[in-house]
Amino acid sequence: MNSPTGPKSALARQMQRGELLDANCPSREVLKHLTSRWGVLVLIALAQGTHRFSELRRKIGGVSEKMLAQTLACLENDGLVVRKSLPVMPPHVEYSLSELGLEVGGIVEDLADWIETHLPLIMQTRREKAEA
Amino acid sequence: MNSPTGPKSALARQMQRGELLDANCPSREVLKHLTSRWGVLVLIALAQGTHRFSELRRKIGGVSEKMLAQTLACLENDGLVVRKSLPVMPPHVEYSLSELGLEVGGIVEDLADWIETHLPLIMQTRREKAEA
Repeated sequence: MNSPTGPKSALARQMQRGELLDANCPSREVLKHLTSRWGVLVLIALAQGTHRFSELRRKIGGVSEKMLAQTLACLENDGLVVRKSLPVMPPHVEYSLSELGLEVGGIVEDLADWIETHLPLIMQTRREKAEA
Repeated sequence: MNSPTGPKSALARQMQRGELLDANCPSREVLKHLTSRWGVLVLIALAQGTHRFSELRRKIGGVSEKMLAQTLACLENDGLVVRKSLPVMPPHVEYSLSELGLEVGGIVEDLADWIETHLPLIMQTRREKAEA
């Protein structure tokens, strides 16, 4: 066992986690997927349960078919979204959050909740700055 | 006092908070600032304390002077970042999080922390998918 402040453990820590402030760290790409314009909204929608593609499209105002498909593919590739093709006629596909997606979906929901709750205050700040 | 499930209270709730899934809600713009490529990283850096412009630029790998200035201006306009011009020679400017910025900065830090911690797992998922 290493001391938590020892050099070996510091190296281990560095190798075991990403570093978002470093331009070359692959965590930047995951951040990009999670916080892309539609990524956040897909996570929020799926945090409320399993959805078909068409349901997601209706729920997320303004998203195009192409952007939704692209966003879902990125999140699926990161292991955050699970795509399930059901053997029915006509065929249809369901999307849900993986265990990992549920974890980060909870944090993204916190962020969304904070924004929605504080929107009036932020809008007021903007008005005051515009009038100043 | 209205019942929390009464129609009056539902209307009040709707008027008092944003709705991110609605394409026309101004909360979408706040989300955009908070989760922009550089917005997230500025919040993470400032959550660690007050910084000068040049310190922020060094800390946030890959950001250009122009993008950093633009990001700070957006977050300042939303009331999340405070810009303080110090009366010294040569003149310099300090940036910090407002009370509101500290609140949401905490959530963004949670998100960053989750991504950094889970990066190895996400990278492994990607490799497995690429090989499948």
